[in-house]
Amino acid sequence: MIKLLLFDLDDTLWPSSYYAEFARRNAVKAMIELGLDFDEDFLYEKLLEVIRDLGSNAPNHFNELLRRLGIKEEAKLIAAGVVAYHNSKIAIRPFPEVPRVLRILKEKGYMLGIVTNGLAVKQWDKIIRNELHHFIDRAIISEEVGYEKPDPRLLEYALNVFDCRPEESVMIGDRERDIKPAKELGMLTVRVKRGKYVNEVVDADYEINNLLELIEILRREDPWRWK
Amino acid sequence: MIKLLLFDLDDTLWPSSYYAEFARRNAVKAMIELGLDFDEDFLYEKLLEVIRDLGSNAPNHFNELLRRLGIKEEAKLIAAGVVAYHNSKIAIRPFPEVPRVLRILKEKGYMLGIVTNGLAVKQWDKIIRNELHHFIDRAIISEEVGYEKPDPRLLEYALNVFDCRPEESVMIGDRERDIKPAKELGMLTVRVKRGKYVNEVVDADYEINNLLELIEILRREDPWRWK
Repeated sequence: MIKLLLFDLDDTLWPSSYYAEFARRNAVKAMIELGLDFDEDFLYEKLLEVIRDLGSNAPNHFNELLRRLGIKEEAKLIAAGVVAYHNSKIAIRPFPEVPRVLRILKEKGYMLGIVTNGLAVKQWDKIIRNELHHFIDRAIISEEVGYEKPDPRLLEYALNVFDCRPEESVMIGDRERDIKPAKELGMLTVRVKRGKYVNEVVDADYEINNLLELIEILRREDPWRWK
Repeated sequence: MIKLLLFDLDDTLWPSSYYAEFARRNAVKAMIELGLDFDEDFLYEKLLEVIRDLGSNAPNHFNELLRRLGIKEEAKLIAAGVVAYHNSKIAIRPFPEVPRVLRILKEKGYMLGIVTNGLAVKQWDKIIRNELHHFIDRAIISEEVGYEKPDPRLLEYALNVFDCRPEESVMIGDRERDIKPAKELGMLTVRVKRGKYVNEVVDADYEINNLLELIEILRREDPWRWK
């Protein structure tokens, strides 16, 4: 019998790659609007380069962008980028079927967790903006635990928190780093095929395109609850 | 003849005290919603205490708030506060007459500047959110200049930037620290009576309640432009 469903967050429950591009492009456009006279695509690519080099959780992406363009740090342009970037976050929504599916799963009695790599406040920021906190019981975040996927200890920690055995648990994620450690532990695995890593080779028990299909899988694997 | 109008930013061009309370109360309410079980007014007062002690530009106000409540830093609660605080900024608007007045002043040929104490990116953030950048020619911000109001050198720096003499310039602000140095330099001074410091004793040439009244003052003091 399955008791616990563990979900990856980014690109599994919400289209994080899509919104990242949306927010970064809005930032670049606002900087152009305030006087940064470069081509939008050029600036966007340059910004991605900065993010690659400094890491996505670094502060001061926009300062560094201007520095690389040989522009004396200009508070006006940085503020334009920051405001547009933050305002874009207002538009964040989960994948459209997600709230409905999570509600059904909750009603059926499953425990629901999120297991995600990242900074705790930043991951919770996204959970709250997507209104996922209404459905999940716990979020297990790498920064707080000290292990990152694909290290199986992050999932072990999660199983421990929920007091569940691997064979009572399902891991749902978009990447091999979600699926591989879960398989190693003996969990059932479901790969959602979307987002930035849609072409990654992932060896999961099931592969779906939409979380509504998860319900069909659970009907088959856990018929007791769905009678 | 008057050539230059210098405006203070906070509580002169937009109701900063009002929005600060709005955003902080929204943050506290969101933290309660996510499980912080305290009275809203109690939390709000505690948060003000933290901001007073750490300074309004410190990061981690919410972390410190939880620490003072004896709660182990909880990423979920901090994120709830941060999201609600930032989302509140979307609602920022200038005082309602401001865009109209600034457009008229621009059309009449005045140079318009903002002279404000604070961090450059943070002050520009507010200028942009209030859409004041469409009207002003320059913003002079203490962090970039190295002097703060009431130090007259900040205003001197501004006069220099605009290449204007004091007697060609007007300073418009809500506080004695805006008016006193301007008077010392020989500028015409206009105090706007609103915001948090509405009861401060300010010794200005004119006192107004609304920036529309500034137009009447300029008609009198600078009749040439208004013929």
